[in-house]
Amino acid sequence: MSTQAPHPTLLIPGPIEFDDAVLNSMGHYAESHTAPGFVKTFGETLTLVRKLFQSSNPAAQPFVVSGSGTLGWDMVASNLIERGENALVLHTGYFADSFAACLETYGANATQLKAPIGDRPSLEQIEQALKEKTYKLLTITHVDTSTGVLSDVKGVTELVRRVSPETLVVVDGVCSVGCEEIAFDAWDIDVVLTASQKAIGCPPGLSIVMTSPRAVDRFRNRKTPPASYYASMANWMPVMQNYENFKPSYFATPSTQLVHALHTTLTQITSRPLSERFAAHTQASDSVKAAVAELGLSQLAPKPENQAHGMTAIYLPEGLLPTDVLPLLLKRGVIFAAGLHKEIATKYIRFGHMGVSVTDPNRNHINSAIASLKEAFSEAKQAKGL
Amino acid sequence: MSTQAPHPTLLIPGPIEFDDAVLNSMGHYAESHTAPGFVKTFGETLTLVRKLFQSSNPAAQPFVVSGSGTLGWDMVASNLIERGENALVLHTGYFADSFAACLETYGANATQLKAPIGDRPSLEQIEQALKEKTYKLLTITHVDTSTGVLSDVKGVTELVRRVSPETLVVVDGVCSVGCEEIAFDAWDIDVVLTASQKAIGCPPGLSIVMTSPRAVDRFRNRKTPPASYYASMANWMPVMQNYENFKPSYFATPSTQLVHALHTTLTQITSRPLSERFAAHTQASDSVKAAVAELGLSQLAPKPENQAHGMTAIYLPEGLLPTDVLPLLLKRGVIFAAGLHKEIATKYIRFGHMGVSVTDPNRNHINSAIASLKEAFSEAKQAKGL
Repeated sequence: MSTQAPHPTLLIPGPIEFDDAVLNSMGHYAESHTAPGFVKTFGETLTLVRKLFQSSNPAAQPFVVSGSGTLGWDMVASNLIERGENALVLHTGYFADSFAACLETYGANATQLKAPIGDRPSLEQIEQALKEKTYKLLTITHVDTSTGVLSDVKGVTELVRRVSPETLVVVDGVCSVGCEEIAFDAWDIDVVLTASQKAIGCPPGLSIVMTSPRAVDRFRNRKTPPASYYASMANWMPVMQNYENFKPSYFATPSTQLVHALHTTLTQITSRPLSERFAAHTQASDSVKAAVAELGLSQLAPKPENQAHGMTAIYLPEGLLPTDVLPLLLKRGVIFAAGLHKEIATKYIRFGHMGVSVTDPNRNHINSAIASLKEAFSEAKQAKGL
Repeated sequence: MSTQAPHPTLLIPGPIEFDDAVLNSMGHYAESHTAPGFVKTFGETLTLVRKLFQSSNPAAQPFVVSGSGTLGWDMVASNLIERGENALVLHTGYFADSFAACLETYGANATQLKAPIGDRPSLEQIEQALKEKTYKLLTITHVDTSTGVLSDVKGVTELVRRVSPETLVVVDGVCSVGCEEIAFDAWDIDVVLTASQKAIGCPPGLSIVMTSPRAVDRFRNRKTPPASYYASMANWMPVMQNYENFKPSYFATPSTQLVHALHTTLTQITSRPLSERFAAHTQASDSVKAAVAELGLSQLAPKPENQAHGMTAIYLPEGLLPTDVLPLLLKRGVIFAAGLHKEIATKYIRFGHMGVSVTDPNRNHINSAIASLKEAFSEAKQAKGL
């Protein structure tokens, strides 16, 4: 029996449903952020972040900071690139525009390499762009939450290492960490930034950033001071290192309850082989995509190799709006999200299939949501005479 | 009967002990940040922030953003002052140094007006400083958590309005909001920034910032773009306005569970006259200060008018270190904090008396802690042969 109050099943691309133990960790009694109990929890959490990213390089550095996933962009833009330097932003949806805006706020020149909606820039296009200019960093949205497009992080990183080895590879993994494979060391990635509330299965409020030794060197050897205070890696790094060595440290008060919840969910996630977790997400995703095809609907990302495994963006049939379909899903006890990509927001809906909704078969969330989706479409079409 | 697991009583100057209902709100089931239920909760929370600050001016603007209290400094430094402009930082402890560092990170020239440890700059000194240069803003640490020094926010604000009316008055209220009187409109303050985890009684993880119409004009009429992305008031303001009008909006995912907890605690706080709350904190503070005097000990802030009401910083007798006393307090089930001010950190301890520990007499936290303090000092002195 769940300890949670009855509620509709939340199947949006984050926040997602919680495991009971994770949610119960949010109710942890008051603790000092510098007392041994919490220091141990925070220190272990940082070590668990390394495991989550399959990283065993002690010179890599994880950061866990109070804030939304967006704060990770500021950490990159204010520490790893300087005013007037170039960033190449691979665009697969809404979030690349925002990341580019963040980079430019701190003075970088952001060049966006855009693909048509539902597609991603090809390796050939990226190679050409990298040869035209010197880029201090390149950003990839691993899964763009607005389109459900999956990027080829491994392939892009290999390309960058071959063509422009000093360019930092920065992965926005907000909608991918915990459901898409990421081998931080093996793929030689420089930064993965993510948030607590998507496939990691923790409530929102923590920004999680993993940095390579190359990225650490970059912010340590800046010509100019960090361009942010709260998002300064130089301010946070000694704090993270102290906590991971079980020594209290202070720069700003951490979100003690959220850190407990993150500790609980990362302990669960890393207690089983990550490959099993990724396989479970692929299997759930295959079921959803098969149901979409069966309904005669198409996805924003038509090519299978471009399709995320933790969410599906579904074009509505001509004549239907998200406001026609979402209430019929809610009536059946399931919450999907409306479209987010500005140009086509009213033309599609988004189905998030991540975390416990996928890994806990007793919940039957995915099959039940697929059944509700079929019923809701049928009812909406009838109501509209389609 | 509390629903919380048994634990030592946390009486540090934040985080503090929680009310059961507040902590239970942290376990709220998963919700979409743009669904009607959460939108209502967040919108009401923003309105409750206005009440907390005794503000009824609809042109004032509250912000509630995921992050530590420190993020409020970045919001000020990156929005309300521009590169090369002057800020006057009134120094009453550690936190003024950090706020100045934050202001300088974003390019402001920060001039610190320092008082000896335990004291605060006089109104005469501030007036003289204001006449020497044009300051775009002045910062006051209402209560410096490192020293327990209380500033005269009302007096300083009156002075600024008289001598340099265009200078924004920025109050760091991290350790004061919820336990020291603040009349935002009546005193004509421009910014109060605070964090969720001190006298407000919510777990850590939310940065709360209240801005006057004058401050809003300032960031709207900048000559240069905002110097931060995540901390940009221009990015957050439409989101806050939409939520308060019960319309969903998105810039970054809010900490839904923490917002529920903040809603619960602000509902409790504002359901009774704030004057009663301030009086309860004054009364508890008087008891603590009387006990300190009775023990023959002195406070970092010797002048009564300089003494905070939510915490007390207590000099240890010659020959005792925090590590001699704090474990003896813990043995008696109560946690105080060590010193924080770099120059004298090993010479004092800090006793936080805020929130439910003060307002819920059934807990008997303050009297019990005073008794433990007396016993611990006696035991520590005996052990050291003092």
